[in-house]
Amino acid sequence: MKLCALAKAAVKKVAALDDATINSALLAMADAIEGKATEILLANEKDIEAARGTVSDVMIDRLRLTESRIHAMADGIREITKLPSPLGVTLDKSTRPNGLVIEKVTVPMGVIAIIYESRPNVTSDAAALALKSGNVSILRGGKEAYNSSLAIVTAMKAGLSSVGVCEDAINLVSDTTRTSSYELMRASGYVDLLIPRGGAGLIRACVENSTVPCLETGTGICHIYVDADADTEKAISIIENAKTSRPSVCNAAEVCLVHKDIAKDFLPKLKEVLADKRAAAGQTPVELRLSEDALKIIDGTPAGENDFDTEFLDYVLAVKIVSSAAEAIEHITLHSTHHSDAIITENTAVADLFTKEIDSAAVYVNASTRFTDGGEFGLGCEMGISTQKMHARGPLGIRELTTYKYIIRGNGQIR
Amino acid sequence: MKLCALAKAAVKKVAALDDATINSALLAMADAIEGKATEILLANEKDIEAARGTVSDVMIDRLRLTESRIHAMADGIREITKLPSPLGVTLDKSTRPNGLVIEKVTVPMGVIAIIYESRPNVTSDAAALALKSGNVSILRGGKEAYNSSLAIVTAMKAGLSSVGVCEDAINLVSDTTRTSSYELMRASGYVDLLIPRGGAGLIRACVENSTVPCLETGTGICHIYVDADADTEKAISIIENAKTSRPSVCNAAEVCLVHKDIAKDFLPKLKEVLADKRAAAGQTPVELRLSEDALKIIDGTPAGENDFDTEFLDYVLAVKIVSSAAEAIEHITLHSTHHSDAIITENTAVADLFTKEIDSAAVYVNASTRFTDGGEFGLGCEMGISTQKMHARGPLGIRELTTYKYIIRGNGQIR
Repeated sequence: MKLCALAKAAVKKVAALDDATINSALLAMADAIEGKATEILLANEKDIEAARGTVSDVMIDRLRLTESRIHAMADGIREITKLPSPLGVTLDKSTRPNGLVIEKVTVPMGVIAIIYESRPNVTSDAAALALKSGNVSILRGGKEAYNSSLAIVTAMKAGLSSVGVCEDAINLVSDTTRTSSYELMRASGYVDLLIPRGGAGLIRACVENSTVPCLETGTGICHIYVDADADTEKAISIIENAKTSRPSVCNAAEVCLVHKDIAKDFLPKLKEVLADKRAAAGQTPVELRLSEDALKIIDGTPAGENDFDTEFLDYVLAVKIVSSAAEAIEHITLHSTHHSDAIITENTAVADLFTKEIDSAAVYVNASTRFTDGGEFGLGCEMGISTQKMHARGPLGIRELTTYKYIIRGNGQIR
Repeated sequence: MKLCALAKAAVKKVAALDDATINSALLAMADAIEGKATEILLANEKDIEAARGTVSDVMIDRLRLTESRIHAMADGIREITKLPSPLGVTLDKSTRPNGLVIEKVTVPMGVIAIIYESRPNVTSDAAALALKSGNVSILRGGKEAYNSSLAIVTAMKAGLSSVGVCEDAINLVSDTTRTSSYELMRASGYVDLLIPRGGAGLIRACVENSTVPCLETGTGICHIYVDADADTEKAISIIENAKTSRPSVCNAAEVCLVHKDIAKDFLPKLKEVLADKRAAAGQTPVELRLSEDALKIIDGTPAGENDFDTEFLDYVLAVKIVSSAAEAIEHITLHSTHHSDAIITENTAVADLFTKEIDSAAVYVNASTRFTDGGEFGLGCEMGISTQKMHARGPLGIRELTTYKYIIRGNGQIR
């Protein structure tokens, strides 16, 4: 891909920028996006026209830009300028007995490629995060948003150019077929890090086919375990929030495990809040898929074979009764995607056991799984949520887009 | 592979061990290796008998164990017990405006698989490093060393067992054909990190085929740039050390770049030390593969097309004259494998330019590239040298065998 060579050629120039220059480039990008709002909205209208009828209403909504969404994109970039630079940070420094001074310093990755869904705002977020961390970005967005992304990238490049920064710091892939995704996965020597964002199919394709280092993101089968010593009110409010505040996202809860000692009291309350009250208020009720013993306590759909291994991304919650915290931990260990899992309990010892044994990127005590998010974690914004263990786990902020090198200073040492 | 399931089942038990227990297990492993020295030497003799005539003398030497090498293996394990635990370290802790306390804590990876060459000592090093960092290891060593590795692993397992630690913490793959390597590369859900050690072919096979997170190690085309402002004596001594102290290893120098202003004075001295003096002393002289302009100054082999892109691992050094530090940086950027590269100069500004612009795991000023090594860096020992940028760069010590998780404590927070 020609773009890969352009991107690689820009690495040295971008790595040489200091943080003040990067910030002025980011501000210029934000201004340019607002300045070109009319052009961006026109391009977006074209995308929406073409997409109408071929994709769901939810997707059309994600695709749609408005004046206010464009301002939000620009403000998102401005927010990033307020973050301290993740570059040039000395992680370690030591003087060895032979006098060598070994320093471990953060540096950019080089070229970061992102394959993402048809969401125009990701185009500006990803480009800005990559630039703040000294990287060149290759953006491969979904085909439905291509015209919008092109207009946004054109504006951002104009912004870069206005402050004398190399336009090739940001690169948009024009081929939105699978071919370009596969090319990026195999672009060894050009792409230092590939981040696939999107559905399970894309992630799997990257894991299966990628020869470049690749960060798995996303899939979240998040659990909430309501312990025997749970505060019932907290539990209900947390589950309601984790399930219904935004069911389509990866940090939404999909499974609720309830300790047998409180199940009889707790399950009817859960059903009341998630199903009955919502239905009465004209909101989509949550469909409860219940294990056999739970079905003896409340009404609901009998849980099928796959219901404890499914990321519903919908108003559906699988519910199971467990006989102990240990059984809950065992279930989660077996079924979790290692994204975010929570325990609700007032018992510190049980909470400590849970946080020690659950092997997920984010393990919660008495809080909603919905907090797994770069902004909520104080990282600024994020490039996605890593569900693998290598390199970075959880929200990928600017720090996670860097690597390090060792600089060793001597005066003639030999070994 | 049945072994993968055994390994995965042991993860929780090994992760639950505290550092004192891990250290006593390591000491018991070391004692058991010494206690079973006779059995290990017998097994090794069998390996050597079988390998004789099929592999090189150098490889036979690497394969051979002696009483003193067995003690060295045991002592290597004992050294690891002196390192502080890399687990349970709080990397970050913050209280968010909503009261959530977010803590980022180091934890084991889980299962680490290592595919390595026929060197029995790697069996004990790798198992010990993995255990110290709370991980279960799957060891897939070269077929020539299988009997030796089996005897070592049998001893180590007896050591584990003697202090009540689960024997499945260490697993040796009995199938030494390619099939087992490919199975490990595709063992998604079982292997959390795969480390291939060995030749370029193995590394490439892992990069091409692996669906599990994989850390590229090894290949080192290391450069030494002798600047116009170099101290000639330091330069000669460093190049001699980097080239001849152990030519078969990845941190040995393969290419020397010399600034044109000093080439006429420097090259004859280089040739004298690397070639003439060594020949006179009955040592293997270094073959110099010279660029055209260098050939006008000293005698040597004309450099061929690939000589600046080859990891010789032998008494061969490619030599080229450059007209500036910038040209040296450009050459290295194009030809380096991003392992270790050095500049020899007394000019601080040029040294700073070099350390800033060279994008390698280890960048040296006035020291030998041979220092890129876990022990030399103060990491204890190492599992290999990473040449990729994701997760870890340079020597892989116990810290690099861990990941982290976020533990978030709240009192009912919802988003």
